[in-house]
Amino acid sequence: MTGESHTDGTAGFLLEMGMLKRAKRSGWWIAGVKDPESIAEHSFRAGIIGSVLAMMEGADPARVALLCLFHDTQETRVGDIPRIGRRYLTAASNESVTADQVSEAHPAVRAGVQRIVEEYENGTGLDVLCAHDADKLECLIQAVEYREQGYQNVQNWIDTSRSRLKTASAQSLAEAALRMTSVQWQETYLR
Amino acid sequence: MTGESHTDGTAGFLLEMGMLKRAKRSGWWIAGVKDPESIAEHSFRAGIIGSVLAMMEGADPARVALLCLFHDTQETRVGDIPRIGRRYLTAASNESVTADQVSEAHPAVRAGVQRIVEEYENGTGLDVLCAHDADKLECLIQAVEYREQGYQNVQNWIDTSRSRLKTASAQSLAEAALRMTSVQWQETYLR
Repeated sequence: MTGESHTDGTAGFLLEMGMLKRAKRSGWWIAGVKDPESIAEHSFRAGIIGSVLAMMEGADPARVALLCLFHDTQETRVGDIPRIGRRYLTAASNESVTADQVSEAHPAVRAGVQRIVEEYENGTGLDVLCAHDADKLECLIQAVEYREQGYQNVQNWIDTSRSRLKTASAQSLAEAALRMTSVQWQETYLR
Repeated sequence: MTGESHTDGTAGFLLEMGMLKRAKRSGWWIAGVKDPESIAEHSFRAGIIGSVLAMMEGADPARVALLCLFHDTQETRVGDIPRIGRRYLTAASNESVTADQVSEAHPAVRAGVQRIVEEYENGTGLDVLCAHDADKLECLIQAVEYREQGYQNVQNWIDTSRSRLKTASAQSLAEAALRMTSVQWQETYLR
């Protein structure tokens, strides 16, 4: 394969990732949210949360940010299947979707992206723990925000996300988010 | 300050980051895009692009992803000021906005986030170069996508972004994105 074809394959992967800026986190449709946030928006704050958790837990903020950024990248192809949908759909592994996504990319990108997804899916270290917690905590904080915006049916999203948190830092941040309003940050400086 | 107050300060930072899921990349309004992507959506793909560039250039994908994730985090407070607006607004440095944002956070978060922003703003290494290129290349690819969606006034965004790319990998990916359609990735497997 020529160098140019590798470049096109890599650019294709970046164009494919643009789909996540348009595709919605579809579980919120069940909660009544007509226009929920995109998968990219969720992944962005999951990355921020993950790196913050890493700083608090003594993990590697950069590694955790990277794991979070890629954790839902397969959803360009299969969409965001909500929990109730998983009863009826048998899905290929995220590793195999990723292998297709980068099959024509630059060799370093092919290997690198697959290694990240492999670690997120099967790793057991503290970095992976923080990344998984970040995914859940992002969902919990978003539920708090949707509740403030008037959507009343988000308790299940809060409870489920909270019960899955593993690190002490994520648990304490969840408690804080549940006792705060989402505009309280503004008061840290405007007082 | 008590531990609980640090937790609230950190949770406040995460809630503040939620603003980037709602705030728009406002330069596109000039190009006629009524509902452009959010700052979080831009930052998400900048992070993906940055880590891919790092893989191609032999930089550290995790470090670059982290720099990209945080590169626009100040825009919760000052918004996304388009280029023409910068003629009339004198803005505080991103480092000083960041210092306010994390002033009440956990000490490790306060130090860690400030270090990331400091490196993005003032660093000179290959990781920083890849992160800056990722910001520009994301804008270029988004311009290509908006053009395909019918918005015809994006040439200036393409030219300006392209002229600022520093790495050979970013330049070759920009060329590829300009000769491809944004759905070509789908054909890599559906053929």
